Amino acid sequence: MKKPDIVILGAGYGGLMTAVKLQKKLHVNEATITLVNKYDYHYQTTWLHENAAGTLHHDRTRIPIRDVVNMDKIQFVLDTVESIKPEKKKIKLENGELQYDILVIGLGFEAETFGIPGLAEYAFTIEDINSARLIREHLAYNFAMYQHEDGKNLGRLNIVIGGGGFTGVEFLGELVNRIPELCEEYDINKSMVRVINIEGEASVLPGFDPQLAQYAMNSLQSRGVEFITGAMLKACKPDRIVFEKDGKEEEIPTYTTVWAAGVRGNSIVEKSGFEHSLGKIEVDRDMRAPGHKDVFAVGDCALIMNDKTGKPYPSTAQIAIQQSGTVANNIKALVQNDEELESFEPNLLGTVASLGHNDAIGDILNKWKLSGWKAVMMKKIIDNRYLLKLGGPGLLMRKGKFNIFY
Amino acid sequence: MKKPDIVILGAGYGGLMTAVKLQKKLHVNEATITLVNKYDYHYQTTWLHENAAGTLHHDRTRIPIRDVVNMDKIQFVLDTVESIKPEKKKIKLENGELQYDILVIGLGFEAETFGIPGLAEYAFTIEDINSARLIREHLAYNFAMYQHEDGKNLGRLNIVIGGGGFTGVEFLGELVNRIPELCEEYDINKSMVRVINIEGEASVLPGFDPQLAQYAMNSLQSRGVEFITGAMLKACKPDRIVFEKDGKEEEIPTYTTVWAAGVRGNSIVEKSGFEHSLGKIEVDRDMRAPGHKDVFAVGDCALIMNDKTGKPYPSTAQIAIQQSGTVANNIKALVQNDEELESFEPNLLGTVASLGHNDAIGDILNKWKLSGWKAVMMKKIIDNRYLLKLGGPGLLMRKGKFNIFY
Repeated sequence: MKKPDIVILGAGYGGLMTAVKLQKKLHVNEATITLVNKYDYHYQTTWLHENAAGTLHHDRTRIPIRDVVNMDKIQFVLDTVESIKPEKKKIKLENGELQYDILVIGLGFEAETFGIPGLAEYAFTIEDINSARLIREHLAYNFAMYQHEDGKNLGRLNIVIGGGGFTGVEFLGELVNRIPELCEEYDINKSMVRVINIEGEASVLPGFDPQLAQYAMNSLQSRGVEFITGAMLKACKPDRIVFEKDGKEEEIPTYTTVWAAGVRGNSIVEKSGFEHSLGKIEVDRDMRAPGHKDVFAVGDCALIMNDKTGKPYPSTAQIAIQQSGTVANNIKALVQNDEELESFEPNLLGTVASLGHNDAIGDILNKWKLSGWKAVMMKKIIDNRYLLKLGGPGLLMRKGKFNIFY
Repeated sequence: MKKPDIVILGAGYGGLMTAVKLQKKLHVNEATITLVNKYDYHYQTTWLHENAAGTLHHDRTRIPIRDVVNMDKIQFVLDTVESIKPEKKKIKLENGELQYDILVIGLGFEAETFGIPGLAEYAFTIEDINSARLIREHLAYNFAMYQHEDGKNLGRLNIVIGGGGFTGVEFLGELVNRIPELCEEYDINKSMVRVINIEGEASVLPGFDPQLAQYAMNSLQSRGVEFITGAMLKACKPDRIVFEKDGKEEEIPTYTTVWAAGVRGNSIVEKSGFEHSLGKIEVDRDMRAPGHKDVFAVGDCALIMNDKTGKPYPSTAQIAIQQSGTVANNIKALVQNDEELESFEPNLLGTVASLGHNDAIGDILNKWKLSGWKAVMMKKIIDNRYLLKLGGPGLLMRKGKFNIFY
């Protein structure tokens, strides 16, 4: 009998952890495992806002795939997925084609701009290493340009963040740390710089514990962030944004709008003929696509309903990593002709949001509400635990966050 | 009798050294000395190309004026000169006015774009700290943008330098050192980047020893620089330049054109009613403006003919510093009612041009032709000597160049 071809698309949290687990669970004689990724590195999506602000170098955030994947056990293909054809069990890549017996789709999220005019063209999004370091350079470039231009254009120093969700708030925290460095570098008075958050709800972090969300707003406000809540972004232009609040349209001159308010599933998933909801496959309990016994989805490409709340579980790194365990076990079962597949049970440990170097908020097991240095510590512990799981102590030492005494 | 008001405009090589010398030569009871400058720092114009390439931080290039000027002896005015009215002995500043009895004009050079379309709008020039660090950021921004954009736009990685004079060649040398760092930072293959020099003459460094100029070209070419000689820049557009060679027009796609082929005197000098030639005052031998017993000009604002060659002496830092000695002595003589003013005699020690970190060429006393590490050493010695003269051993230790073993 031919060895089955297991193909994993995407080396994000879900895909890469599936690969790392499978290389331990399956013998090379049992299956051929192929991992496909657009870059030869994995990056921690949850750290990208730090790269974008310029407070952490992107080489700390990314991990060469060869460092965590055993290339003797797993074939790595550096290529971009163009489409999935489940009826033919084929993957079309930019530079080739792959055949699979078992497929794992972990292609991640895409930004969603909801058709707001100009957003796709002029706003930045924090999606990957390339877009994050572009934001870092864009910030520096505008500060340099401000000093160089004859007419002092304050729009160069206004930074607008659209959306006060998790990414938006964490990015604000990093900006607060970064601005003084930029001001020093370009001889700019700190009081000239504005960091403005526009959020549609009445408070940032909707869905989070309200007291902690308020703590986050107060913490960031006290360090200079301006919040415009209950406001909708209406348009983004090269030199300003337009928003609506209380039925009135207003403008803010800015060359830097970072859109952190819209994330959706994957357009490749959408076009491949699976049942999906905005690019996410509502997977069965065993993480397989409905009607496809050989296709798994993880992370941002998978949708799992929380029966208690009637809402989908959020697409967090935590859940994607947990899913990879179920997916790896179930693939092992399929390969070994074990009929019994396990069901995925999310284990919601809680959430910690950083607010810059020395503040954070955390909601642990829906029981402990943390803020300040305890939450900062917890955040670093979570980040470090992932590195330990992914690449062992060696990776933790190289990429871990130990600067706990800012 | 009222103490005379000595006003020095500009804290470049000539102006600042005049101030530093006068604070030693004159007692505070003899004269009131005022130094006016646009920034609260002096910068070494001859190092700006390193800041622009990103190989040296601009804080190494600039020196706070309070570090070298004794603020008890000299009044420092942070302001921009708008015009000089010699008939009223008045200086109009952006935020005020000054009256002088003795004036020193050291306002530096301006870029000259010779009416080439688009050059003033889209090309960069290496003029001051602000413009130099903008070039550094612009380079990084375009490399980041190249990686982020979907369609790979090679124009982002093409860098065009207009002019193969001293600044152009030294900038090329720094770029050669900088490009590998930028490629590493933005995951770009070095072979994708083009650094192109466009020069009107048949060789770079016209006027320099032809053998050394050839050495410079070979050295830079061997490290990847492309030279297009005998070519004229015809137009600069946001995304490309147009040049003419052998009667044919050609284009190069680029977002980064650095114009290093045109320098002229000062437009404030031009408008102030002094006899001038393109913004430079053809000073008498005592460094005074013809017909103005109380006005001195130094550096780029002064024109001195070389009687042997029939051409003006070049406006180098070396000559500006030498002039400051004559100017300071002559001001002291005027203040002390000494009739005898000294004549300026340039002492041409020679010229060294760096070609990156580990190569240079030098023509010393028109006698010794140096290249390679000897010229590199000589360049650092010249740079360090200036710092020693300007601010003593303390300044030399802080800002000197001692990394002689690259």
